[in-house]
Amino acid sequence: MKHTDTIVAMATPAGAGAIAVIRLSGPNAISIASTLFTSVSGKILSKQKTHTVHLGYFKDGDKIIDEVLATIFKNPNSYTGEDVVEISCHGSNYIQQEIIQLCLRKGCRMAQAGEFTLRAFLNGKMDLSQAEAVADLIASDSAASHQLAIQQMRGGFSSEIKKLREELLNFASLIELELDFAEEDVEFANRDEFQKLISRITQVLKRLIDSFATGNVLKNGIPVAIVGEPNVGKSTLLNALLMEERAIVSDIPGTTRDTIEDEISIGGISFRFIDTAGIRDTEDIIEGMGIQKTFEKIEQAQVVIYLFDAEKFQVSAHNKTKENNSKLQVEIETIKNKFPLKNLLIVANKVDKLSEESLKRLDGILTPHTSHLLPLSAKKGIGLKELEARLLEFVNTGALRSNETIVTNSRHYDALLKALEEIIKVQEGIDANLSGDLLAIDIRQALYHFGEITGQVSNDELLGNIFANFCIGK
Amino acid sequence: MKHTDTIVAMATPAGAGAIAVIRLSGPNAISIASTLFTSVSGKILSKQKTHTVHLGYFKDGDKIIDEVLATIFKNPNSYTGEDVVEISCHGSNYIQQEIIQLCLRKGCRMAQAGEFTLRAFLNGKMDLSQAEAVADLIASDSAASHQLAIQQMRGGFSSEIKKLREELLNFASLIELELDFAEEDVEFANRDEFQKLISRITQVLKRLIDSFATGNVLKNGIPVAIVGEPNVGKSTLLNALLMEERAIVSDIPGTTRDTIEDEISIGGISFRFIDTAGIRDTEDIIEGMGIQKTFEKIEQAQVVIYLFDAEKFQVSAHNKTKENNSKLQVEIETIKNKFPLKNLLIVANKVDKLSEESLKRLDGILTPHTSHLLPLSAKKGIGLKELEARLLEFVNTGALRSNETIVTNSRHYDALLKALEEIIKVQEGIDANLSGDLLAIDIRQALYHFGEITGQVSNDELLGNIFANFCIGK
Repeated sequence: MKHTDTIVAMATPAGAGAIAVIRLSGPNAISIASTLFTSVSGKILSKQKTHTVHLGYFKDGDKIIDEVLATIFKNPNSYTGEDVVEISCHGSNYIQQEIIQLCLRKGCRMAQAGEFTLRAFLNGKMDLSQAEAVADLIASDSAASHQLAIQQMRGGFSSEIKKLREELLNFASLIELELDFAEEDVEFANRDEFQKLISRITQVLKRLIDSFATGNVLKNGIPVAIVGEPNVGKSTLLNALLMEERAIVSDIPGTTRDTIEDEISIGGISFRFIDTAGIRDTEDIIEGMGIQKTFEKIEQAQVVIYLFDAEKFQVSAHNKTKENNSKLQVEIETIKNKFPLKNLLIVANKVDKLSEESLKRLDGILTPHTSHLLPLSAKKGIGLKELEARLLEFVNTGALRSNETIVTNSRHYDALLKALEEIIKVQEGIDANLSGDLLAIDIRQALYHFGEITGQVSNDELLGNIFANFCIGK
Repeated sequence: MKHTDTIVAMATPAGAGAIAVIRLSGPNAISIASTLFTSVSGKILSKQKTHTVHLGYFKDGDKIIDEVLATIFKNPNSYTGEDVVEISCHGSNYIQQEIIQLCLRKGCRMAQAGEFTLRAFLNGKMDLSQAEAVADLIASDSAASHQLAIQQMRGGFSSEIKKLREELLNFASLIELELDFAEEDVEFANRDEFQKLISRITQVLKRLIDSFATGNVLKNGIPVAIVGEPNVGKSTLLNALLMEERAIVSDIPGTTRDTIEDEISIGGISFRFIDTAGIRDTEDIIEGMGIQKTFEKIEQAQVVIYLFDAEKFQVSAHNKTKENNSKLQVEIETIKNKFPLKNLLIVANKVDKLSEESLKRLDGILTPHTSHLLPLSAKKGIGLKELEARLLEFVNTGALRSNETIVTNSRHYDALLKALEEIIKVQEGIDANLSGDLLAIDIRQALYHFGEITGQVSNDELLGNIFANFCIGK
C-alpha cells in the first residue's frame, strides 16, 4: 500500500503569526525540499540525519522566498511513516502560498483533508480509532473531551477491542476447523469456554455501549437550559459563570469569543447553555412555554435551571408575596410535569437583597416542590460555586476518573451495537445447540464489526468519510 | 544585556489546525521543557544536541497533555540567541493553553508582543532595521512588499547606512582629534576628502528619501479609485480582476476573503481599490462628487479609473448618442480639472456590445480628452490584461528590479530626513569655513540619526514603540 506521490500542505492554522509550518510527506519529500532549500552552513539537506533541523533559505531559483528552518524525518520514523520535511517559515500568507506553489511546481501534490493521517493509518503507524482520535483531539475544548481523545489516541479503546476480537477469532478458527472434520464429530472449540467468552464479550459490549451516553456528553458538552422570566438575572448568571473561565483563557491571544459565549467549562466538563430567548417575550412563563420552539430547546437540555427573582419574596410586602408564592409553586410543578425526565435546578437569584427570614420562609414554601433550593446572587457572586458543584453532580465522571474506556464516536457506537446484535445471535445459537457452521457465520459477522472500529476491516468509502472530516494538513 | 527570565508564547496563529508551535526562550528554556517532556525513547531532553527533534509526551505530573515534538536550539544558535525550545503539539486551543499554563507554572513568563525579536536584537542577532523587517515580512501580502521586507531583513539597507555612518564616524573622530591639538593648527581630516564624503552622503540620503514614495506604495499597495455611474460594471470589473488572483490563492484553506476583497495583486504589486460607493447614489456623477467623503477618497487615490458604459454610444441610436457624447466629454474634463495630479484611466466597458464602427467613433470623440481610450468588457474578459498593464505603468518598479535599496519604513524615512538636515548644516559649515569643533556637533547629530535606524542608538521608549507592533510569539 505504498504511496508513490509526495503531498504538501500547511500544517498550522491560516492567518498571520510568528511562524507557519508547511509539511511535505512522501518518497520525494526530502529530494524536493533539497532542490528548494539552501542551507546557511552549506550542508546538503538530503544528506542530513533524521530528526535534525537546518537553517537556510527557501529559494525560487535565485530569488529568496524566506529564511526558514527545515526539519527532516526519515521513514519510518515520522508521523506518516514516510519521509517527511517540515518547513518552518515566517507566518505570512504570501510566503506560505509561495512555498506551497513552489513545492507543487517541483512535483508535490496538494494534500487532501486528513491525508497525512490517512497515510499514517495505511502505513500502520496507528489504527483507525486512533486516527479518529487525532481529529477529536484537535477539536477538544475541555479537559474531559481532551482526556477522552488522548486515551483513544494512545490506543486504550483499540487494545480492548483488539483483544476481544483476537479471542473470538481463535474460537472462530477452531469452530471452522471442526467443519473440516465434520464426519468425525470432534470438538476443537471447548463449548464451556466458548460460552464464557461470549458472556464476557456481551458484558464488555454492553458496558461500552452504555458508556456512549457519558462519552457523548463529555465530548460535546452537557446541554443546560436556563429558563425564567425577563430580568430575573439570566444574563448576569451566564456572565458570572463565564468570567471564571475567561480569566483562564485570557492569556491566549485570539481565542474566539463567539464560540465559547454560551459554553462554560466547569471542573473540566463542558456545559452548553441553551438560549431560551423565546420565553422572555411572554409575561406568563408557563404559557410562554407553549411555543413549540422553546419546548424543543428544553427538550434537548439535560439540565434545566429555573431561575427566579427572590426579591419578590421579601416578607415585608406580605400580600403580594402570598400571590407570588403560589404562582412560583404552580410554575415549578408545571415544569416538573412537563419535563419529568429532566434534572431540574430551582435557583433563587438576587438573594443578597433578601432578609435571612424571608429566605427561610421561601425555602419552607418550596420544600414540597424541590429537594433543595439553591440561593444565589449572580451579581455579588454568591452561590456560584454551589451551582457549579450541583451541575457537576449530574455528570457521571466516575468512568472518567477510573480511566475506564468510554466510547465517544458514533461510528464506533454503531459498530458496537451491530457486534452486540451478532453476539446475541451467537448466544441464541449456542442455546439452541446450533451446528458449528451456522455459529461460524454469526461469529464472522461480529468479527467484521469489531474490525470496522480499528480499521482491520475498511474500504475506500469508509476511509473517505472519516478523513474528509479532518482539516487539510493533518 | 543578558536576560535572566525565560519567556513563552504561541508562535503559530490562533485557531484549530493540524499542529501548533509554542516557543520558549531564555536561560531556563531547556530545563523547564525537560521537566514537562518525557521522550518516547527515554532520552533526557537537556542532554540532547542543538537542532535536534524529539518525540515524546508533554505531561502535567502523570497526566498526558499531548504527544508532541520538542526541538532544541542551544545559544547562541537560535533565533533569539538564547536557549530555545519549540514544542510542536496538536493544534487544539485547549492543548496550547494547557501547555502554556504549565510552562508559566514552572517559571516561564508570558512573552510580550515582539519580545522574541527584541531579544534577538539585544543579543546582536540582527539590527533594528532587520528586526522591523521581520514584522514587515509577516505582514507582506504581495511579491513587491515581500521582496522589500526580505531585502531589508537580510541587511541590504542596514549595511548601506552602516557603511556611511562608519565613514562619517572616522572623519568625526579625526576632526575631534584636531580639537585636542587646537593650538598646533594641524588638520588630521583631509578637507577635500571630507567634502567628497559629505557630497556622497547627501546624494545617498536624497536617493533613499526619494525612494520612500515608491517604497510606501509598494508596501501598502497603490490606491486606485474606480468611479462611474451605477451599472457601468464596476463590480464586474473588480470581480474579473479578483478572479485572476483568487485562482492562485484558492488552494490555501481559510485565506480570509474580507481583507483581500478590494486588494488585487497585479504583477506582484498590490493595488488597493477604493470604494467610491457614494457616487453610486446620485444620477449625475459630477454632481455626486460634491459629496465631501467621496472627494476625500478620490484624493487618497493615486490612480482614478473612470468607467463608463460604452453601449450607450452605439451609432444606431444617433440622437441619444450625441447627447451622451457631450455629457461624457464634460464629465471627463471635470474630473481632469478637479484632480489634475491624478493618473486618470478612461475605460469604456461593455465594448463587446458595441460595433467596430461605433467604437472607432467613440475613440475619435474622446481623443482630445484622453491620450488613449481603454476598451474593455469585464464580463467577457476583454481588455483586462491591457488594463493591468496600464496600472503597472504607474508604478516605478525600476528600483525594485535593479535591487536598489528602497526605504519603506516611516521611522527610517524620518531619521533619514533628520540626518540630511544635519548633513546640510555640515555642508554649510564647510562652505562658511567653520571651525572643527562646530562642525563636529552637527556631524555627531547626523551620526545619531544614522544610528537610530540600525539601533546603534536606541532607548527603551523607541524599542517599546517598535516591538509593540509585533504579534505575540514573534
